[in-house]
Amino acid sequence: MYARPASENLQLDANGRLRHFLTIEGLGRQTLVDILNAAESFAGVSARTVKKVPVLRGKVICNLFFETSTRTRTTFELAAKRLSADVVNFNIGTSATSKGETLLDTLRNLEAMHVDLFVVRHADSGAAHFIAQHVSPGVGVVNAGDGRHAHPTQAMLDMFTIRRHKGDFAPLRIAIVGDILHSRVARSQIHALNTLGVSELRVIGPRTLIPTAARTLGVHVFHDLEEGIRGVDVIIMLRLQRERMQGALLPSEHEYFQLWGLTPKRLAAARPDVIVMHPGPINRGVEMDSAVADGPHSVILEQVSYGIAVRMAVMSMCLQAPSLEEQPA
Amino acid sequence: MYARPASENLQLDANGRLRHFLTIEGLGRQTLVDILNAAESFAGVSARTVKKVPVLRGKVICNLFFETSTRTRTTFELAAKRLSADVVNFNIGTSATSKGETLLDTLRNLEAMHVDLFVVRHADSGAAHFIAQHVSPGVGVVNAGDGRHAHPTQAMLDMFTIRRHKGDFAPLRIAIVGDILHSRVARSQIHALNTLGVSELRVIGPRTLIPTAARTLGVHVFHDLEEGIRGVDVIIMLRLQRERMQGALLPSEHEYFQLWGLTPKRLAAARPDVIVMHPGPINRGVEMDSAVADGPHSVILEQVSYGIAVRMAVMSMCLQAPSLEEQPA
Amino acid sequence: MYARPASENLQLDANGRLRHFLTIEGLGRQTLVDILNAAESFAGVSARTVKKVPVLRGKVICNLFFETSTRTRTTFELAAKRLSADVVNFNIGTSATSKGETLLDTLRNLEAMHVDLFVVRHADSGAAHFIAQHVSPGVGVVNAGDGRHAHPTQAMLDMFTIRRHKGDFAPLRIAIVGDILHSRVARSQIHALNTLGVSELRVIGPRTLIPTAARTLGVHVFHDLEEGIRGVDVIIMLRLQRERMQGALLPSEHEYFQLWGLTPKRLAAARPDVIVMHPGPINRGVEMDSAVADGPHSVILEQVSYGIAVRMAVMSMCLQAPSLEEQPA
Repeated sequence: MYARPASENLQLDANGRLRHFLTIEGLGRQTLVDILNAAESFAGVSARTVKKVPVLRGKVICNLFFETSTRTRTTFELAAKRLSADVVNFNIGTSATSKGETLLDTLRNLEAMHVDLFVVRHADSGAAHFIAQHVSPGVGVVNAGDGRHAHPTQAMLDMFTIRRHKGDFAPLRIAIVGDILHSRVARSQIHALNTLGVSELRVIGPRTLIPTAARTLGVHVFHDLEEGIRGVDVIIMLRLQRERMQGALLPSEHEYFQLWGLTPKRLAAARPDVIVMHPGPINRGVEMDSAVADGPHSVILEQVSYGIAVRMAVMSMCLQAPSLEEQPA
Repeated sequence: MYARPASENLQLDANGRLRHFLTIEGLGRQTLVDILNAAESFAGVSARTVKKVPVLRGKVICNLFFETSTRTRTTFELAAKRLSADVVNFNIGTSATSKGETLLDTLRNLEAMHVDLFVVRHADSGAAHFIAQHVSPGVGVVNAGDGRHAHPTQAMLDMFTIRRHKGDFAPLRIAIVGDILHSRVARSQIHALNTLGVSELRVIGPRTLIPTAARTLGVHVFHDLEEGIRGVDVIIMLRLQRERMQGALLPSEHEYFQLWGLTPKRLAAARPDVIVMHPGPINRGVEMDSAVADGPHSVILEQVSYGIAVRMAVMSMCLQAPSLEEQPA
Repeated sequence: MYARPASENLQLDANGRLRHFLTIEGLGRQTLVDILNAAESFAGVSARTVKKVPVLRGKVICNLFFETSTRTRTTFELAAKRLSADVVNFNIGTSATSKGETLLDTLRNLEAMHVDLFVVRHADSGAAHFIAQHVSPGVGVVNAGDGRHAHPTQAMLDMFTIRRHKGDFAPLRIAIVGDILHSRVARSQIHALNTLGVSELRVIGPRTLIPTAARTLGVHVFHDLEEGIRGVDVIIMLRLQRERMQGALLPSEHEYFQLWGLTPKRLAAARPDVIVMHPGPINRGVEMDSAVADGPHSVILEQVSYGIAVRMAVMSMCLQAPSLEEQPA
């Protein structure tokens, strides 16, 4: 019952339309641009007096979180409510799986309750794919972060933020700074930026935290922050997972900041109109100085705002909802 | 203030209409058929583009759960939202009762917040009745499982599933398998099947798990699985509470499955068009083989789906809402 | 980025309209009367068939609770839903602050998600003010209790209850009984009653629990219950925090009840039409006898009901929503 034929591309239907949103890998440039354009139309909704559209009225969206993330769950919940969907939060820690039910039984049961779309967060890489392989036709799956693998809605809100500020991707030089090795965010960003075709993509970090295969991904590797950000249009700082500090991979937070922390002084090496991004939450004084986080180059809070619009776009596309323009008033 | 005259039948008003839904006992055949018919009309809502009806718009439904059950709570929450009601989840473990407030004070306070209907889950038999005895006129109570006593919405979704597959109840032979003694589900099912008038009702299980009074309930008792299911139209498997294993009542899971587990081979003793039901979550390899759970006779996931429609029916009837047919479009 | 000029009165805009509702202190009589009048119009909504108004449709209200209070959160949640707002519950214990994010970063992030109004509950006095000082223009903050400082919506629902029963405030003699020293509720009530101009305001309690500065607040202090309630129109009992019992401030619960517990016999000292109030949850047999709590003078459950209407009023005023009368049908 559970085995279904693997599709060439699980994420797209026969007409190339989005069914699930699991990873940036394997999606073409046009699909990413479609998402950005849909997000653009939804971004305007937030400026309305009534910040709601009936796009997903009567649809049921289930936040299926195997890993707690109040913040990410809240952005999906708000995006879903803004689309007029009904939302149920299903925290797997407290659910039937603790009664010995398998994940697939839990999934089948939620499906039988007429859930239309699952937003999945899981500590294991591949969890969202596994679920997408097993849901019924017509049910969508959005990956809200799986292990070290992918966090595609985060990557797309980053792309949206860059496009809002810089317009065209083609001429841009972009640097990603920090723990590339363990970051699902970085992995998704690199795929998105390559697909959208930037001029130059750099990754900057300590040797222990840059995957050895990085160069095969078409990126330039730097081990010196100021050298790496010289002349770039966009700097994307990654969040440092403090638990890495305990291992041998990283020195202390203080030492990390000395080498890799972004300060106003260092920022001067980038282009004068550089924008600074971070997926949040920031470790102030570790990844960057507060003067940068709250300074004129920071677009960190815009990223959060755009995250709502991008998630509205992805969820409505996976459910093949009519676009905002086609909706009755 | 708390004492009110006990009514002859707490569940019905003077005109015989449903006020609370606490137990199948004491309800007549017509009331059960009314519930099934209302559920039938709501089942169609799930096939609509917009899976929502305005039947309970502006009503407040409170999930008052003294016992955690994410799954049952979710089905009630989805049913309520599909009726356009507002839902508040009130988990008693974290509420004012921990500040020393009595249950009745908590109830009075929620009532004062204009809650229209309470969905009550409690580890003690009789809890939902107690609450129904003390709510104000016009406020409804639905029992979502109380101790070993009753789980009437589960029983009605089982009846709905049987009617969908078999049509008329009169000619049916039905077997309930497992721990009858401790099961509120079985108790409610037996009352419902007797009231709806099936041809023959059998219970099957180890001597330690069949109540001695079973025969007075109008059922035939079997202690051999294959003998018990011979020629039946419907097999209802009960969930085995693993904690029973620790006591003297039951052998190991492995031994249980050897004696009472449903396998494709054993299933051949039943009628060729037999349907297999289970309230979930299944213990695979204990109550039944996966080949049965996921096989062609299983209607287990349909039960879950129909659970939404049945709960919509019961909640709207308790609130004397106009039926779906009487609603404006 | 976080520093903003302190306004003369953080709660009011240049036109004297409510922007935040943090404390009764500093608000004029007319503002309090406006709140009561708005609550009066919302109180009627609960009597309608559809108990919902579209006043805040599309607005996002975030319950930002740093201190658990299921009951208070539920009243705000129900009030918000009755205004057709979308509600997100953000429990800070489980949120990003546990990942090392500062409170202000959390706040900025929620703001960036387009939250329109924060309902803040915090164990520290001044927390809601701090948040109101740092939110963006147009975002409202309602204090749902901060430390020992204020609980202004509780005070206003008390005022509403008094006005409903007694009409004019001017001739009233009102007594507040209990632990005045530690009570944010009492502090807010005293400010409200002084601003609305009652004839006489008394506080009654043990010497250890009456602040020495009480007389400067314009109240008469009594250390004998029967003497203190003689001839009063309204008695407001405070909730006794049981943890005070452990310290040296209070005798045992039994002794407390002997001296300060309200009984029908003692109540006879007040006016025959006295009303008895309590913010809940009641400690029966400590602050008062059940015969009083459930007796004819008690208006305790009405307070809870009016709490919904008062919170609807405050939230819609802070968001400058059109009043109920101006809404389209």
